[in-house]
Amino acid sequence: MTSTYTSALDQYKTFYKKQLLEDTLPFWFPRAIDEEYGGYLLMRDADGSLLDDDKAVWIQGRFAWLLSTLYNTVEQKAEWLEGAKKGIDFLRRYCFDEDGRMFFHMTRGGKPLRKRRYFFSETFAVIAFAAYAKASGDKEVADEARRLFGKCLEYATTPGLLEPKFTGTRPAKGISIPMIMLNTAQQLRDTIGDERCDEWIPKWIAEIEQDFVKDDIRCVMEQVAPDGSLIDHFDGRTLNPGHAIEGAWFILHEAKHRNNDPHLINLGCRMLDYMWERGWDKEHGGILYFRDMYGKPVQEYWHDMKFWWPQNETIIATLLAYLMTGNQKYAGWHQQIHDYAYQHFHDKENGEWFGYLHRDGRLSSTIKGNLFKGPFHLPRQEWYCWQVLEAFQK
Amino acid sequence: MTSTYTSALDQYKTFYKKQLLEDTLPFWFPRAIDEEYGGYLLMRDADGSLLDDDKAVWIQGRFAWLLSTLYNTVEQKAEWLEGAKKGIDFLRRYCFDEDGRMFFHMTRGGKPLRKRRYFFSETFAVIAFAAYAKASGDKEVADEARRLFGKCLEYATTPGLLEPKFTGTRPAKGISIPMIMLNTAQQLRDTIGDERCDEWIPKWIAEIEQDFVKDDIRCVMEQVAPDGSLIDHFDGRTLNPGHAIEGAWFILHEAKHRNNDPHLINLGCRMLDYMWERGWDKEHGGILYFRDMYGKPVQEYWHDMKFWWPQNETIIATLLAYLMTGNQKYAGWHQQIHDYAYQHFHDKENGEWFGYLHRDGRLSSTIKGNLFKGPFHLPRQEWYCWQVLEAFQK
Repeated sequence: MTSTYTSALDQYKTFYKKQLLEDTLPFWFPRAIDEEYGGYLLMRDADGSLLDDDKAVWIQGRFAWLLSTLYNTVEQKAEWLEGAKKGIDFLRRYCFDEDGRMFFHMTRGGKPLRKRRYFFSETFAVIAFAAYAKASGDKEVADEARRLFGKCLEYATTPGLLEPKFTGTRPAKGISIPMIMLNTAQQLRDTIGDERCDEWIPKWIAEIEQDFVKDDIRCVMEQVAPDGSLIDHFDGRTLNPGHAIEGAWFILHEAKHRNNDPHLINLGCRMLDYMWERGWDKEHGGILYFRDMYGKPVQEYWHDMKFWWPQNETIIATLLAYLMTGNQKYAGWHQQIHDYAYQHFHDKENGEWFGYLHRDGRLSSTIKGNLFKGPFHLPRQEWYCWQVLEAFQK
Repeated sequence: MTSTYTSALDQYKTFYKKQLLEDTLPFWFPRAIDEEYGGYLLMRDADGSLLDDDKAVWIQGRFAWLLSTLYNTVEQKAEWLEGAKKGIDFLRRYCFDEDGRMFFHMTRGGKPLRKRRYFFSETFAVIAFAAYAKASGDKEVADEARRLFGKCLEYATTPGLLEPKFTGTRPAKGISIPMIMLNTAQQLRDTIGDERCDEWIPKWIAEIEQDFVKDDIRCVMEQVAPDGSLIDHFDGRTLNPGHAIEGAWFILHEAKHRNNDPHLINLGCRMLDYMWERGWDKEHGGILYFRDMYGKPVQEYWHDMKFWWPQNETIIATLLAYLMTGNQKYAGWHQQIHDYAYQHFHDKENGEWFGYLHRDGRLSSTIKGNLFKGPFHLPRQEWYCWQVLEAFQK
């Protein structure tokens, strides 16, 4: 590490901390706390005005996770813990169906509007409960986190338990499941701990490595056949570079946890390399949303838009890859994606980031929060990068 | 009608006929006929090369409808009838599930990949069967069209018969159902006839008028509460101008059928007026995909893209409104949308239209066919405009 770059890293650390605490978090907190019904009112326009008072279950969990995590790792502020509790209580009181599954979309008052086939509501609730249990010492919530993690394990490993979207004609599996389970287990381990984490984490990483990472074509697949073979149809060819790069840093994080395990560092860096090559927009900068494995047209209409979260995940992955390898290539990539993202997505007037840009960087929508976007990928990136820079400088 | 504009109409008539028969249809026919498995191979790139050999049930029906309709109304070409039969046979042999519902997405060989909650596969099969039955004289297919229309009536009028996507917390209904049923019944009436058509058509038009057309705010809603009241959340506020304008011309078509019924002409023109005002992009031209009722941000990412089909529907609606009212405003709108659309969407090199442009008219994808786009909205527009100009000039 050259001394020049050491000083740059110091500036990044200060920047991420400042952005998180003085720009991103104040956009949401305390404004989003729903004092009347509990939970959070997060569907907001650029200036913070409320667009819809519905509540997305994913994001209720994610914001409770964020506030608890800040309490656990940054400062034990009573208001953060109280804010986290608002979300935890809302999730526990309203967001579970009678069959134990969670809903996806709620009214402000806690009535269910939609339940989906996927169990991502559950995984985000696990990390929220676990982080809150650590922050509050509430044993009941800790038990709830462990119980729900057990349900997620069951959903993830029992074919046919959740209603399938497709027939059995062309069986497929997505990288989403091992990725989200890996991160959920990492969060659980880092907060209240659970012996199942160390049992399962290596299995999910092995599945990603064996079935989704294709060294021969330098590619991380989003979807493959159950045996890992390629599916040469629209869905099977569709790549999501920002998502695969998120997976790359989950694996680099695991490498760090295992005393810089060289095999995992290599795996995470390969994933990042392959998908930077495929996802980075050489013409306009930024990470594109979807790409076809063969460069053919993608079926999804928004394929060439720039969404906020792939940029956040790439900022983390490139920084972590640099810190763990010292390879200047990653320092360069980190600077490129950081500069692009903060220049194009950051709302300098109102704080926080816009979510949706056209390929060329023009704003497509002023929306800050909806069913899919809320206080998660951006604050997690700023928090993680700050914390990891802190750890590496010690 | 001024004599200048009469001559312009004559040019439009010649243009649409020529485009249909010498540019649009030759892109698909005979290339798309699957001689091996039956049905059509329609998922193609700009140059006609096959991107995916899967078959979308909607579009199998729509292409069989198109070929049968050309046979019925343009020329009794044996190859069109034979081509139509390929799709009819594929639909009847493979695309029905054991419960009588139809699938949505099939493999090339006829195995089901996905079934959806909606019954649009069924409505497109009804118009395909009806048009083919008229062309071929096949009584069994005519019976099948009538039987399936009966099933659609049942699905459309029996709440809870099809699995709902949402809970009952916030009941809503879409304009899609009365619109598609109206058009399906019109097609059935115009081909093999069915006494239920004249019974139901006025009911669907009344539902559209009473519950979806809001004169006080000059708006056609895409979704409302069962009693027609507005739902002030993202989905309830989201307007689809091209879709509402398609509904407008279905109603103008009905007005023509009823000897220029003035009430229906007025209704269709109001719908067109309201949604042209909201959907026409004053900056770049063309009809935008989604708009919020109050001009707030829309949740769907692709809200400001230009898709091919809203332009097709608006070309029909503006032309028909002009022909039925003589109002020069509509002639001007028709010229504007016609010029914009053929200039930006038409692939001058390979024929047919691109499907997906960015708001400013730049190409987003070269794709010509996928799960949603195929030989329907464009050839239907060219065929309908040609035929209606023919009829009005008599």
